Amino acid sequence: MKNSLNELFYPRSIAVAGVSNSITGSLISRFYLQPLIDFGYSGEIYPVHPREKELLGLRVFPSITDIPGPVDYVVSAIPAHKVPQLMEECIAREVKLISFYTAGFSESGDDVGLKLEATLLEIARRGNIRILGPNCMGIYCPESRVSFDSTFPRENGKVAFISQSGGVALYVCREATSRGVSFSKVVSYGNASDINETELLQYLAQDDATKVIAAYIEGIKGGRKFLQALREASAVKPVIVLKGGSTEAGARGVMSHTASLAGTDIIWDAAFNQWGVVRVFSPEEMIDMMVAFSHPHTQGKRVAIIGFGGGASVQAADDCEKAGLSVPLVPQSVREKLGKLALVPGSIFKNPIDMVGNFANPEEFDQTIRIVSEWEDVDFLLTHLVFGVGGLGYEDLKLHVSMLQQMIDVAKTINKQVIFALDSTSSPVWQKESYYARQKCIAAGFPVYSSIRHAAQAIGRIQSLSKSYGSSGDVRA
Amino acid sequence: MKNSLNELFYPRSIAVAGVSNSITGSLISRFYLQPLIDFGYSGEIYPVHPREKELLGLRVFPSITDIPGPVDYVVSAIPAHKVPQLMEECIAREVKLISFYTAGFSESGDDVGLKLEATLLEIARRGNIRILGPNCMGIYCPESRVSFDSTFPRENGKVAFISQSGGVALYVCREATSRGVSFSKVVSYGNASDINETELLQYLAQDDATKVIAAYIEGIKGGRKFLQALREASAVKPVIVLKGGSTEAGARGVMSHTASLAGTDIIWDAAFNQWGVVRVFSPEEMIDMMVAFSHPHTQGKRVAIIGFGGGASVQAADDCEKAGLSVPLVPQSVREKLGKLALVPGSIFKNPIDMVGNFANPEEFDQTIRIVSEWEDVDFLLTHLVFGVGGLGYEDLKLHVSMLQQMIDVAKTINKQVIFALDSTSSPVWQKESYYARQKCIAAGFPVYSSIRHAAQAIGRIQSLSKSYGSSGDVRA
Repeated sequence: MKNSLNELFYPRSIAVAGVSNSITGSLISRFYLQPLIDFGYSGEIYPVHPREKELLGLRVFPSITDIPGPVDYVVSAIPAHKVPQLMEECIAREVKLISFYTAGFSESGDDVGLKLEATLLEIARRGNIRILGPNCMGIYCPESRVSFDSTFPRENGKVAFISQSGGVALYVCREATSRGVSFSKVVSYGNASDINETELLQYLAQDDATKVIAAYIEGIKGGRKFLQALREASAVKPVIVLKGGSTEAGARGVMSHTASLAGTDIIWDAAFNQWGVVRVFSPEEMIDMMVAFSHPHTQGKRVAIIGFGGGASVQAADDCEKAGLSVPLVPQSVREKLGKLALVPGSIFKNPIDMVGNFANPEEFDQTIRIVSEWEDVDFLLTHLVFGVGGLGYEDLKLHVSMLQQMIDVAKTINKQVIFALDSTSSPVWQKESYYARQKCIAAGFPVYSSIRHAAQAIGRIQSLSKSYGSSGDVRA
Repeated sequence: MKNSLNELFYPRSIAVAGVSNSITGSLISRFYLQPLIDFGYSGEIYPVHPREKELLGLRVFPSITDIPGPVDYVVSAIPAHKVPQLMEECIAREVKLISFYTAGFSESGDDVGLKLEATLLEIARRGNIRILGPNCMGIYCPESRVSFDSTFPRENGKVAFISQSGGVALYVCREATSRGVSFSKVVSYGNASDINETELLQYLAQDDATKVIAAYIEGIKGGRKFLQALREASAVKPVIVLKGGSTEAGARGVMSHTASLAGTDIIWDAAFNQWGVVRVFSPEEMIDMMVAFSHPHTQGKRVAIIGFGGGASVQAADDCEKAGLSVPLVPQSVREKLGKLALVPGSIFKNPIDMVGNFANPEEFDQTIRIVSEWEDVDFLLTHLVFGVGGLGYEDLKLHVSMLQQMIDVAKTINKQVIFALDSTSSPVWQKESYYARQKCIAAGFPVYSSIRHAAQAIGRIQSLSKSYGSSGDVRA
C-alpha cells in the first residue's frame, strides 16, 4: 500500500488523458499538462487524445496502449462515461495509479454517477490500480516536480496539505505561499473513492520530508481507522484540521460536493481535543497556523508589543491577552532607559509600546526596539504597522516602506524573536506596497500575519498545545 | 449644552492655531487646515501663527485677538505649555469651542501634563468655553464641510462615529467609506477632558441626521450617566460599541493613551446585552455592522447561497448556519426547474448552490439566480466570488470582472435582496481588480462583505437583535 502512494508522489512517467486544443482541452492542459512542463517534471509526459497529434510541443498518443514506455501514473480529464474503457487500457499497460479530475460520479447523487464510481472501483481492484479522486485536482510535490498549478513555488517545504476540495487546495497553497509557507506534498483527493484521508494521513505521518500536516476534510470513510490514523499522526507531528460540513447545510453541501458523510461535529471536536489536533475554522486560520508552525515557536507567552498608534496599541494588548499571551508591564529600569530617548508627547512605553510620535525618527525607533529586546522578562517582540492610516501621499508611502525596512533591519540584529503584524487599508496603492513589504519580511525570515489579532491567536494556540514537537519547534529545513 | 455641540459641528468660522510652513506645521496643516480648504468649508478660516504671513493662500494672523471677525471654533496644534495663553485670548474673543490636536496632557501620566489639563479646564469653565480633547483629531461633518482629513467623502450619510482614538477614526472612516458607508458626524475626542462620550451620545441620539451610532471607547468618565445615555440612545437607534482596554494590558494602554479608566469588562458586557447594544471586538467587525445597518435589513433568516467552488460552498453553508441564519434545502419543484438548465457535472444545487461549472456560462448562471429568487421559502440571496483562485492570466481576470458585472446586473432585476461576499487572494493584481469590483457593487447599491463569514455574522447579528428600528431597518437617505 505504501508503495502505491510513493508512486503517486514520485511517478517515473505521467500520461494525461483528455487533453486537446479545444476550449475544454485548454482548460485541462492549463490545469495539468502545462504545470508539468512549467515545473520541468523529469519523467516522460504522455498527452493522450484520440484525434490530436501535438500539444504544447509534446507528441499526443491516441490511447494509453499506444504509449511506448511504462506508465506509472495517469491523470484523466475525459468525460465520466468514457472512464471504464480508459481503465481497461491502464490495466493492459500496468499503470499503478489514476487520478480523475472529472466530476460526474457519486457526488452527483444520481444513479448513473453512483454506478459509474462503483464500476470504476471494481475495475481498479481487479487490475490492481489505485485511484485518486474522482473529482480532484491531484498532486503537487515540488521534490518530484509534479504540480497541478504552474504558479506554485518550486522549492521543497515541510508542510503537507491534503484537501478534499480542489478550490480550497488552490486557495490555501497560493495564500500560504505568499505568507512564506512552503510545501512537501499537497493532495487534492476529491471523492476519496479509493485513496482517502486515512491512508494519506498514515503516509504523511511517516514521511520524513513532512514536518507539519494540514487537512481540509469534508467527510470520512471508515471513522474508526481514520481516528486511529489521526491519533498516530498527531503524536509525531502537528496536525491542523479544517472540517467542512459541521452544520446541517454544510453537511448537505458535502454530500453534493464529494459524496461524503460529514459526521457528527461533537465527535470530531472531542477527538481533536483529546489528541491535541489543531482544529481551525477557516482557510485563513489554517494558513496562520501553517505560518506559526513554519517558524521556531516562541519560548514563552510573554510579549512586548511595539507599534504605531494609541488605539491600535490598546487593541493589540487586548488581542494578545485574549489569545492567552502575557503582556507584562515595562519595569522602571527599562522605562528609565527609554526615558532618555527624545520621545515626543503621545509616546506610550509601558507595554503596549506606541512609537507613533517617532514614526519619522528611525534613530529613536531603533533604540527603543534595542532597549526593549534587552528586557529579560519578555520572550518575544510583536511589532505592528498598518499601511494607509495617516497621510496618503507618495512621501507617506515611501516613509512607510522605509520604516518597515528599518523594523526588519533592527529585528535581524537583536537577540529576541520578532514577529510582524502588517496590515493595510484596502486602497489598491497601499495594498500593493504592503504586499511587497510583507515579502521583504518573509525574505528576511520573519513570520508575518495580517494583524496582531491573527498573530496572537496563532502563537497563543501553539503555546496552549500540551505537547511540543522537538525542542525549538522549528520545522524549517 | 446642546448649543455648544451644535457649534462644534456647524461653526460659523474656524481658527487653526499652530500652523506654519515648517515640517511640524506642514503636518498639522495637512491634518487640519488643508482639509477645510479641500472640503470647501464655507465659513471664514483663520490660520494663526506668531511669525508666518501666509499659508496655503490664506492670510495668517499673529494671534486669536488679531482676527477681525467672530471666531466660533479654534483648532489648536500649539505645544501643550503654550495652551493657557491661547485660551485667555479665546476668552477675550468669546470663542465657543477649542479642540486640541496636541498630546502632552493627562495621558502622559506625569505631573506637568496632569496639571496642564487641569489648568486648561479651569480656564475653560471660567471663560465659558467648551473643550474637545486634548489629544484628538477633531471633527468630520460633511454637511458643514468640516473635516480633519481631505480624503473623506463629501456626501452626507447616516452613520455617526465617535472615537477616542484618532488613528481608529481615520482607519474606520477610510475603510467604511470604501465599503459604501457614509457618515453624518465623526468625532475624534481623545482625553475627553470636557466633552465626553456621554454628551456626544446624548447629542447623537437626538440628531435627526444620524440613524446609526458607532463608538470606539477606551474609558468612561462618570459611569452612571454614561450607561443612562447608552440606554437612551440604543432605545431609539442602533448603537455599535468597540470597547478598547477590556484586558489588563489593554487597560494599561488606555491609561497611557487617553488617561481613561477602562472599567470592568463584565459590567460593560452586562449593560450591552441588556440594552441591545451591538458590541464588536475589532474595527473590521464594526465596519461590517456599519455596512449591515446602512442597508435595508433582510426580512428573515432564510438564505440561498450561490457562488463558485464546492469547498467554498460547504464553508459558506457552515458559516451561515453558525451565524444563526437558516439555509433551507432547495425543494423538488425548484430543483426540477434548475435541472432543465444545461448544468455541467460538478454543479451543486441543493443550497448551498455551486455554479463553478458554469463560470464561463453567463446564460445558465442568470437563469439559476432567477429561478432561485422565485423560490418562496428564502428571504434573501448571498452570492460569493473569490478573485484569484483558478487560472491567473489576463483572460481569467477579465472573466472574473465580467462575471461580477453579470451578478450585479441580475441582482438588480430580481425581487429578492442580494448581498455580495467578494474576496481575493492577496496578489496585488487581483486585489486591485476585486477592489474595483467591490466599488461596482456599492455603486449599484448592494452591501458587500469581504467573505461569506463576515456577511453572515453581520446579518445574523441584526436578525438576533430583539428590537427593530423602523419597519425595513433602512437607514439610508
